[in-house]
Amino acid sequence: MKNNNTRITIKQVAEEVGLSITIVSQVLNNRPCRVSVEKRKLIINTARKMNYRPNQVAVGLVKGQRNLIGLAISDIRNGFFADLAKGVEDETRKNGWNLLLCNSNGSHRTELDNIQTLADQGVSGIILNLSSETTEEMGAECIRLLEKERIPYILVDSDLESNTSGFVSLDHEMGGYMAAKYLLESAHKNLICITGPSHLIATRQRLNGVRRAYDENGYSYDMVKRIEGKYTYVSGRSAAEQIIEEYRDANAIFAFNDLMAIGAMQVFQENGYRIPEDLSVIGYDDNIAGVFLPTPLSTIHQPAEEIGKIAAECLINNQVMLNSQERRILLQPELIKRKSVLSVTG
Amino acid sequence: MKNNNTRITIKQVAEEVGLSITIVSQVLNNRPCRVSVEKRKLIINTARKMNYRPNQVAVGLVKGQRNLIGLAISDIRNGFFADLAKGVEDETRKNGWNLLLCNSNGSHRTELDNIQTLADQGVSGIILNLSSETTEEMGAECIRLLEKERIPYILVDSDLESNTSGFVSLDHEMGGYMAAKYLLESAHKNLICITGPSHLIATRQRLNGVRRAYDENGYSYDMVKRIEGKYTYVSGRSAAEQIIEEYRDANAIFAFNDLMAIGAMQVFQENGYRIPEDLSVIGYDDNIAGVFLPTPLSTIHQPAEEIGKIAAECLINNQVMLNSQERRILLQPELIKRKSVLSVTG
Repeated sequence: MKNNNTRITIKQVAEEVGLSITIVSQVLNNRPCRVSVEKRKLIINTARKMNYRPNQVAVGLVKGQRNLIGLAISDIRNGFFADLAKGVEDETRKNGWNLLLCNSNGSHRTELDNIQTLADQGVSGIILNLSSETTEEMGAECIRLLEKERIPYILVDSDLESNTSGFVSLDHEMGGYMAAKYLLESAHKNLICITGPSHLIATRQRLNGVRRAYDENGYSYDMVKRIEGKYTYVSGRSAAEQIIEEYRDANAIFAFNDLMAIGAMQVFQENGYRIPEDLSVIGYDDNIAGVFLPTPLSTIHQPAEEIGKIAAECLINNQVMLNSQERRILLQPELIKRKSVLSVTG
Repeated sequence: MKNNNTRITIKQVAEEVGLSITIVSQVLNNRPCRVSVEKRKLIINTARKMNYRPNQVAVGLVKGQRNLIGLAISDIRNGFFADLAKGVEDETRKNGWNLLLCNSNGSHRTELDNIQTLADQGVSGIILNLSSETTEEMGAECIRLLEKERIPYILVDSDLESNTSGFVSLDHEMGGYMAAKYLLESAHKNLICITGPSHLIATRQRLNGVRRAYDENGYSYDMVKRIEGKYTYVSGRSAAEQIIEEYRDANAIFAFNDLMAIGAMQVFQENGYRIPEDLSVIGYDDNIAGVFLPTPLSTIHQPAEEIGKIAAECLINNQVMLNSQERRILLQPELIKRKSVLSVTG
């Protein structure tokens, strides 16, 4: 730390008032001590004038806590994570806590480094969103590290079999169900799902929801084709190219995030498909960009800010204990109808 | 901190090996001490087995530094700030530092609270983006607080007269100049600027650039009309409504950010204007949403990630001293030509 960045210490206040450090410390920390009212006033007024403030870091060390939450995510530039971070930060602020942010850039190696760094910084808990390359086995490695470091944690969005702590997410089974049900009600049976990576639980959950909608409507789930995407704009474009080549009878696309839906729609429109007349498209996330498209995108709303808020709340209120009480909180999805799905009635 | 979150201490390692805390501490902190090779090995191996790690917070306190950068911005959900945060975080990580994040939600009051909170957390420096409601006078209040707390800082994007420290930003005068020059080259003289808040230096700088382009091309700057926006989608829509009412001879719009450009374009298109045939529009920022519009938006690229990276670099490398060496770094803008400006040749 630079020399000019030094804080006023209790010692300096003590020197200024000509009293012992012990007495000044007792007064400023509001501990009982024998000192006259005049001296107490003098100490407090002098400390104020000198702009003395207790060193929160030292205070935290003595009390054994730092009131810090670590947020480990893939990439803050993705709207979902920016909203998530906003929710976490609002909640930490409200409680006088602070937020340390780490991006993994989608790398499991960096994800592990991030957990270690946050642990070394003495965070009281970590909110972890696994990178999309993280398999069940890699995820278990994260959990082992968190347990070794004895850091309470909460997973958000995508869960792990090995998670022994909390989990906060949109109910992805229900999200998949709502999207498929809406398409089936609009007479779209020939569905192609552009999914996320197949090793993610959140991908399987959305597919389970799709299956339930097909079962309930008496259709065979075998009718649903799947193309695996990577949650990126580019992978949405590739999926659409494959669909144009191989699946000419498709009449509906369910992309497991909006970015892939947007990429796919662009390819379809470049190839002369009218949306929704020739092909209906539904996304997932409710990314703001979907509103501004030539054909505004229908989608499943993800309450990312709310997820962040709840996860932070659980950690701050000590509701997540390591290896103990499991807490799984699922938020309910909302269907956002815009213009990209052809309705049977109009 | 929860009981289960306790770290292994030097004392526990000492108990385990049956040696004094002093000796164990000396060995683990790699300080010279008289101890046999066997004992040294025993201590190191035991510490490793027990998963002992030095407490970085305590280490930081002793060394008088915490390697923390505070980032105080308006709202992480705005793409510019998400990119900025990404740049700051990449740079802090590279240097083994960490990032504390605070949002002001556009409120000057919260902005002041954030600076105080970051100071109390012992950050080594603050990267500050003033809220858009912050006037020169309110900004001076922030600077006074930073100076009182003796925290090195760097302003990003919008500067203050009272800034005695560093500043990193796109060169907004040049950005305004490039946008206006491009429009004038395409024979658009009847320009309306949808500006940011007029109390912001960054607004005046863009306008100065527009004036320079008009001067150079021999046109009167009086031809340029101004409508003050708030950098929001809604204020872009309102501006467009006013333009349709009052400025029927306008043939070009320069919105001082993309969000306002997008709002304005939507209103124009809802009212039957063809873009760019009836009206050319240029934005500022290079927000990803501009790519997906029915008419992809031409714009001035803001290197937000680069700005964050440089600001963090300056703080980490101690290049910003409080009240001393001033550092102002201006990055050069880039014109992104898409489809929203009518070209004279095509």
